[in-house]
Amino acid sequence: MNKKNIEVISASGTYTVTVGFGIFKTEMERIFKDEIPDALYLITDENVHKLHGQLITSVLEPLAGEIHRMEVPEGESSKSIKFWEKVTSFLLQNGIRRNTPVIVIGGGVTGDVGGFAAASVLRGVPLYHVPTTLLAMVDSSIGGKTGINHEMGKNLVGAFYQPKDVIADIEFLKTLPANEWVNGLSEVLKYGAISDESIFSDAEIFLEDKPYDFDHQKLTELISKCITVKAEIIKKDEFEGSVRGYLNFGHTFAHALELACGYEKISHGEAVFLGMLAAITLTNLTGSSLDRNPLKKFSTLYRYRVSKEELSLDELLQNMASDKKRTDQFIRFVLLNSWQHPVLKTVKDSALIRKAWNTVFDEL
Amino acid sequence: MNKKNIEVISASGTYTVTVGFGIFKTEMERIFKDEIPDALYLITDENVHKLHGQLITSVLEPLAGEIHRMEVPEGESSKSIKFWEKVTSFLLQNGIRRNTPVIVIGGGVTGDVGGFAAASVLRGVPLYHVPTTLLAMVDSSIGGKTGINHEMGKNLVGAFYQPKDVIADIEFLKTLPANEWVNGLSEVLKYGAISDESIFSDAEIFLEDKPYDFDHQKLTELISKCITVKAEIIKKDEFEGSVRGYLNFGHTFAHALELACGYEKISHGEAVFLGMLAAITLTNLTGSSLDRNPLKKFSTLYRYRVSKEELSLDELLQNMASDKKRTDQFIRFVLLNSWQHPVLKTVKDSALIRKAWNTVFDEL
Repeated sequence: MNKKNIEVISASGTYTVTVGFGIFKTEMERIFKDEIPDALYLITDENVHKLHGQLITSVLEPLAGEIHRMEVPEGESSKSIKFWEKVTSFLLQNGIRRNTPVIVIGGGVTGDVGGFAAASVLRGVPLYHVPTTLLAMVDSSIGGKTGINHEMGKNLVGAFYQPKDVIADIEFLKTLPANEWVNGLSEVLKYGAISDESIFSDAEIFLEDKPYDFDHQKLTELISKCITVKAEIIKKDEFEGSVRGYLNFGHTFAHALELACGYEKISHGEAVFLGMLAAITLTNLTGSSLDRNPLKKFSTLYRYRVSKEELSLDELLQNMASDKKRTDQFIRFVLLNSWQHPVLKTVKDSALIRKAWNTVFDEL
Repeated sequence: MNKKNIEVISASGTYTVTVGFGIFKTEMERIFKDEIPDALYLITDENVHKLHGQLITSVLEPLAGEIHRMEVPEGESSKSIKFWEKVTSFLLQNGIRRNTPVIVIGGGVTGDVGGFAAASVLRGVPLYHVPTTLLAMVDSSIGGKTGINHEMGKNLVGAFYQPKDVIADIEFLKTLPANEWVNGLSEVLKYGAISDESIFSDAEIFLEDKPYDFDHQKLTELISKCITVKAEIIKKDEFEGSVRGYLNFGHTFAHALELACGYEKISHGEAVFLGMLAAITLTNLTGSSLDRNPLKKFSTLYRYRVSKEELSLDELLQNMASDKKRTDQFIRFVLLNSWQHPVLKTVKDSALIRKAWNTVFDEL
């Protein structure tokens, strides 16, 4: 079987991310081979349960005495304090103990809220991530960020909490909706931009006619490369004091854009793609001379539902100013000294930032 | 000036606990000497604010551009999910950033809820503990446990989150109510029981006529010894996988007792003292032969408001069975092989546990 293992080294220990096709069963058996837990808690995205519930249950039932299952409704509203409280109550009311495994199966929303519940119940129980979207496989399930939203903004409450294992079974991607592929692609391209040039050429499989009839081996390889980039960065800076910030390439623009669109008319992936193009423009306006094409050639895959007439430059700049990553009064961007050489730069001249935003408007 | 420094080594870094009389000002100046933060968030127990607010403000005002202050009402109800949400909103609505310090000043309740808010806002901001009760100085402010209560039980939601510094200024103890001294004394005696025999003799200052007219040097020494014991244990086992469990000596009984009394008719310290006596009885029933006197001689300091007629053995046993520290279906106790030699033991014979509970009833 073609599978890849990537080690993630963190302060709370080292864990493995396994990527491959059809690996869910064998990996779950590996994890619980030494001791069948008397109970196991399963937090699953509702759509994943509809599509794969039978498989998941048939794999897990022989592996634990008792299975307690909870579904997570689709969408950002599941990342509320209220829903997180519901997940913690589900775990506590069903008698969770400190060594009982919690398996979180789904995309970013499920992973974030399920992960924060596992992090905070009994001050932390063993967490296993089974990402089922491309975005979750290459990004949100890796590196221990968990969290929920607050009325003041997205992901403002949460924990750095590392899983015990991450199982990225690309067979789950068979049922992934088209917009979710593009959502993940932006993060894939981000790794190409900040670290590994070969990711750009590997990602060209997305430009082919039928991205869903994927080549298992190529996709396993591509996802593994992305995770490797992220793992290397986390090893250096788990708690985002320095180089972990590079992973926010394009995201300062993206977050402002998502907020301006009320998180509805634009997906995170669409916003990140536009944000990366804006970051390249800002890079070029501050002294570099980058060819935009390595990224720009993927533009055809994105179909925006928002028009530039609906956006206000002033509002976008205002949104940037309240980004949680900020540590002082100026906005700090991830720019590129050259492709694959990111740098953190404070840009004080708002005229340049406005010009960069125009790149976004030109794409819409 | 007579002050002591104790280092606490954790996965997220090493920090210092400083103990002494009248050290709040100089230690705060030390912490912020290199860079005046543009803002600082202060979470203070309401009584501490009434008694010491002026001092605290006068010390902190020159040290930060802006001070945002929130008071924590006395009592366990401040350890609700609802109040924690209020603290996180206070921090976020006042524009907290990732590097902005949060200073938590108060006893266990304030430290637990303020600590969990600091741990979870923006996935963690710099936390400084200023414990103002004996209990908080020797126990709850040390070692990174933060948390809130859930309808299923106490401290069931929270995080392991280490502070950057702990400043234990015993001058705050001048205004400590009598019952709070006894509350802390139980944890002090616990360290004597599990690790450092000299703590028992040092703690005899509590048997003197006026415990509040304390000798600064003796009290600094005693508190420092307790923190040293806890720091040594945390160094070996930060996340309570093994020896950190020793710190629960007496606590399995105590938690069951507190729950049976609805957390009202008995204080944590009273329950822990009784729990330790029960643990010694259980120790002797399972093969050891311990002299109870080193602990028993402090009995005169405790005045219980609960009578044995109000308690049910069956209920107490039931409460023990649902303790969150449990990892399997039997109840595991911290017993003593001999004084200062704790051991984790699973006791399956409930008749012995019932006999141990009778020790508690005899004290009431």
